[in-house]
Amino acid sequence: MNLKTKIREIQDFPTKGISFKDITTLLKEKEAFVCVVDNIVEEFKTKNITKVLGIESRGFIFGGALAKELGAGFVPVRKKGKLPAETIAESYELEYGVDTIEMHKDALSSDDVVLIHDDLLATGGTANAVFNIVKKAGVKEVYFSFVCDLEFIQTPEKSNIYKLNPHILVKY
Amino acid sequence: MNLKTKIREIQDFPTKGISFKDITTLLKEKEAFVCVVDNIVEEFKTKNITKVLGIESRGFIFGGALAKELGAGFVPVRKKGKLPAETIAESYELEYGVDTIEMHKDALSSDDVVLIHDDLLATGGTANAVFNIVKKAGVKEVYFSFVCDLEFIQTPEKSNIYKLNPHILVKY
Repeated sequence: MNLKTKIREIQDFPTKGISFKDITTLLKEKEAFVCVVDNIVEEFKTKNITKVLGIESRGFIFGGALAKELGAGFVPVRKKGKLPAETIAESYELEYGVDTIEMHKDALSSDDVVLIHDDLLATGGTANAVFNIVKKAGVKEVYFSFVCDLEFIQTPEKSNIYKLNPHILVKY
Repeated sequence: MNLKTKIREIQDFPTKGISFKDITTLLKEKEAFVCVVDNIVEEFKTKNITKVLGIESRGFIFGGALAKELGAGFVPVRKKGKLPAETIAESYELEYGVDTIEMHKDALSSDDVVLIHDDLLATGGTANAVFNIVKKAGVKEVYFSFVCDLEFIQTPEKSNIYKLNPHILVKY
């Protein structure tokens, strides 16, 4: 299946000049939804993944399905202030300002094999921050999976992610 | 499995006097995660569900897994301003102020059988607003699934949801 044809591009959202990749048109088609999940599961089924980390909030959608299919637990990585217990936090720079994401301190253990999932790899700022959180937590191994990669954006943070050989389905 | 023992209660979060039901302790245990998904799938597998609606953002986690297992598409219901295309919106009252949620206008069709999923049924305000959105869209049939219900909260909106015979796993 050509997944790119299932993703809608919307011009000037959320701001002028941005061509937004809208995966809702992919999500609502059951064949396309299954195709994404099966493809990622095929890639990671022999890796003994113990925890799938989904990045808030679109990363939760396929993240939940992947946890079920891979027989793993699910860990949400959330925006600041949403998680109720003690967290590990990491801040990263945006074009204007700073953002912070968090994971519960008791979410992972040293023998966990982690798959970090998000729908979109753009600047790599968020993904790199999640990688730093997982390093602070201390686990056995870390993998990355993204539905889309905006290859025309290149940053130092993204170079870090590329070194970890992320699994990517659709490239722009 | 006694799922209630897997849910952590955190006092005074997000505000004083609230005993927050933290499902992250359930999510991270693969046996508990699978137990929730299998139980909801068992309930709805004969209903010919064509679309699972997940309510942002914790409703996305099991919502994604349910879409995969039930062979359905997934539709996100999101907070105002997050969805890029034309939406159907619905506002509802909070204790202080008003909140608005949205679904894409092209997400559902008249022959869809819809399962609306969220992790928590509290006042029923959000769930009732989602039900109104789905009614506006016009579908064949609507079902509800929640992981937890705070039965000690009773409101007119919640009475509407109860009339639709929602599937609930854990009651407080």
